[in-house]
Amino acid sequence: MLLDDLRTQLGEDQLVTDLDVMESFAHDEAEWAPYGKPVAVVRARTAEDVQTVVRLCIEHRTPVIARGAGTGLSGAANAVDGCVILSLERMDKVLEVDPLERLAVVQPGVVNDHLRAHVAEHGLWYPPDPASSPWSTIGGNLATNAGGMCCVKYGVTREYVLGMQLVTGTGELVRIGRRTAKGVAGYDLTGLLVGSEGTLGIATEITVRLRPLRAEEITVAGFFDSLVAAGRAVEAVAAAGLTPSALELVDRNCLKAVDDWRNMGLSTDAEVVLLGRTDVPGEAGRAEADRLVQCFTEAGAGFAVRSEDSDEGDALFAARRLAYPALERLGPLLTEDVCVPKAQVPEMLGRIEEIGRRNDVLIATLAHAGDGNLHPMMLTPPGDDEQKRRSLAAFDEIIAAAIELGGTVTGEHGVGVLKLDGLATEQAPEVLDLYRAVKRALDPHGILNPGKAIPS
Amino acid sequence: MLLDDLRTQLGEDQLVTDLDVMESFAHDEAEWAPYGKPVAVVRARTAEDVQTVVRLCIEHRTPVIARGAGTGLSGAANAVDGCVILSLERMDKVLEVDPLERLAVVQPGVVNDHLRAHVAEHGLWYPPDPASSPWSTIGGNLATNAGGMCCVKYGVTREYVLGMQLVTGTGELVRIGRRTAKGVAGYDLTGLLVGSEGTLGIATEITVRLRPLRAEEITVAGFFDSLVAAGRAVEAVAAAGLTPSALELVDRNCLKAVDDWRNMGLSTDAEVVLLGRTDVPGEAGRAEADRLVQCFTEAGAGFAVRSEDSDEGDALFAARRLAYPALERLGPLLTEDVCVPKAQVPEMLGRIEEIGRRNDVLIATLAHAGDGNLHPMMLTPPGDDEQKRRSLAAFDEIIAAAIELGGTVTGEHGVGVLKLDGLATEQAPEVLDLYRAVKRALDPHGILNPGKAIPS
Repeated sequence: MLLDDLRTQLGEDQLVTDLDVMESFAHDEAEWAPYGKPVAVVRARTAEDVQTVVRLCIEHRTPVIARGAGTGLSGAANAVDGCVILSLERMDKVLEVDPLERLAVVQPGVVNDHLRAHVAEHGLWYPPDPASSPWSTIGGNLATNAGGMCCVKYGVTREYVLGMQLVTGTGELVRIGRRTAKGVAGYDLTGLLVGSEGTLGIATEITVRLRPLRAEEITVAGFFDSLVAAGRAVEAVAAAGLTPSALELVDRNCLKAVDDWRNMGLSTDAEVVLLGRTDVPGEAGRAEADRLVQCFTEAGAGFAVRSEDSDEGDALFAARRLAYPALERLGPLLTEDVCVPKAQVPEMLGRIEEIGRRNDVLIATLAHAGDGNLHPMMLTPPGDDEQKRRSLAAFDEIIAAAIELGGTVTGEHGVGVLKLDGLATEQAPEVLDLYRAVKRALDPHGILNPGKAIPS
Repeated sequence: MLLDDLRTQLGEDQLVTDLDVMESFAHDEAEWAPYGKPVAVVRARTAEDVQTVVRLCIEHRTPVIARGAGTGLSGAANAVDGCVILSLERMDKVLEVDPLERLAVVQPGVVNDHLRAHVAEHGLWYPPDPASSPWSTIGGNLATNAGGMCCVKYGVTREYVLGMQLVTGTGELVRIGRRTAKGVAGYDLTGLLVGSEGTLGIATEITVRLRPLRAEEITVAGFFDSLVAAGRAVEAVAAAGLTPSALELVDRNCLKAVDDWRNMGLSTDAEVVLLGRTDVPGEAGRAEADRLVQCFTEAGAGFAVRSEDSDEGDALFAARRLAYPALERLGPLLTEDVCVPKAQVPEMLGRIEEIGRRNDVLIATLAHAGDGNLHPMMLTPPGDDEQKRRSLAAFDEIIAAAIELGGTVTGEHGVGVLKLDGLATEQAPEVLDLYRAVKRALDPHGILNPGKAIPS
């Protein structure tokens, strides 16, 4: 009956019911996260389509799960049995760029890199840059409050979303937020929606804040013998009062995977590479780069160098960006996303190594190190169930260690389904009750991506 | 009975019931905003005191209104009849400064300038700087999402609050938010609480993000013959892609009031002064200052000059800061707080002049011009009821004009009671319903500052 209603009220070409095609829409990229079977996938073209789907799902008390490109890593967009998957990829237009107010209005299906390229033509810059930026959409970035490499200096998605049009849990199509630089009229529902993983509303149009394009960046690379030494360099950068525009850590396992795949001639002599960048213009930028080199060296880098040649810097950062897909080629990849205080980065990196050794798991580590946001990745040969068990054990131990060190179970990937237990361990029962109260308030019928983001 | 319970459960010296003393706690600085009579004022010393008060108020179904220094300008902290006023001024300790993680943990009664001075000793900086910073508290700044002069480059209070301990509407004492640079575990209740004017919870401890101290600023001053010409300069600065660290507008009425009071020898030949600052270090900063001068000149400044002498720059900014108290000396002052898109700043300034002329009201205008956040102030001689009526009419017309130009009724002062009608005009009924749903979810007994921030 729901299917009949969807068919009647939407165009036939917007509805997917083929089982194989639906399967490809039924999950994101989180390894081993459970997912169910949808009854239909709707490929919406307009906000009104989204409203129609939500209203029918309310009527039929059917879960509706919005998704963008499906590059998430926590299972937030995974299907539950009997749900409708609402794909927003076709809503992919940049509707407006306002250079003077420094904002853009986009549909949720606009790809992150596409937006970045589009606004660059106006001399503007959209900072949040998750590693998925060639594929992931602004709607998905909003739903997960996506981070990236620039966050260490420029903040995450929430800091760039000014307002949105959304379909609410009661099926209304409304606008929240603002277009002005400042505004305090009403509660900050916009910030609340960002990172809510489609559980409180579905954005159909998004107004994002932009910055002017930056000065050319200078890249600094440091090569270290151990994760812990690289962690000490991260701590030293923070202690020196520096604010690099990126501070990324890539271990040898990552570099090797990229080199095996793309043959980039990367050195894998060192155990870890730390990549820093500064975008401060002029002499002050060169001075900041020199201070980064100094921090790296004093923390024990075997070799540290500043490169003003942007091609060389870009190659190192390209390797960092390619690390995730390069590792995925080798087998199921369980990706962690803990974030710890900067002073705990050396300790946490040491614990990750120790957890890998003790559980006999190969862990490759990438990190937005300057934020304390670490992505240890457990590699498992395909089909090796015993190894899978050990990888899952390591995953849980890493979460426990991060919480013990004053950190959080998820820095930027979100709770989805993979971190529901971790969230309940990290935060007080009374706080979980507050989340549930907010969820009931904004999704009174309980149809918006139920069972995700917060423990039911 | 409530009084008896308060007396039993709190120390006698924490309870104020003297009518005259209570009167001074019963309102903020919003002119002509209605306020009622509290049954008691509690001067809390600890989070547990706050919890005790909230629990008793739940039990007795009595409104509880938290307040800091009472410098608000929208009546958000005003008493309603029969309420308990909960003063947090005695909770005034900076509990921790973590230079490496760049954060501070403070009690809500810490004065803004005190925090700024305290963290400066660690080479750190707390940016939000409302004009009330010598008196207003971080708790009050949180409740109103306070802005200030730096916001044009560094954002408002919400961007600096990482987490808090709070007493909820159900009387629980909980911690929300984080201490790490990033974190997406759970809904963003922290951001939701910021700017909620004590209607969703009462913060008892606040973790704020800090930045490194900045380079010395360079000040640029431009003198204009008309508000509209100064507005064109603001537009030109935005169009040039500049991001000054302040861009403030002060009209002749403001300068004259300051000079009459403090005899600072300020020039009042010009109709309007525009004050810009840059904190970009080195040659790039000097270049930005020169470009500001150029924007001012091209927009029609009679005179525009860059000053690297920080005393001279500080004097001009001191005059800007003193404008509000200087004007308050002259009589009741009705302060507007609209915020419009930057392209509309010249038009909005023109309309303010026209509204003043048509209603025969003397309007002095201050503005965080670079944000489009304008503070026209209606001056009324004490006791002149006819003039008061005209001032109130001008107030309403300014709100209507701001909404018409795509702006908001409040850029930084908040809704309180003065902007409840404006909020309902600006935003859709469905959005007001979302606010009410959130309010009911987090304040199920309806005791937290009822009737403020959102229309009941």
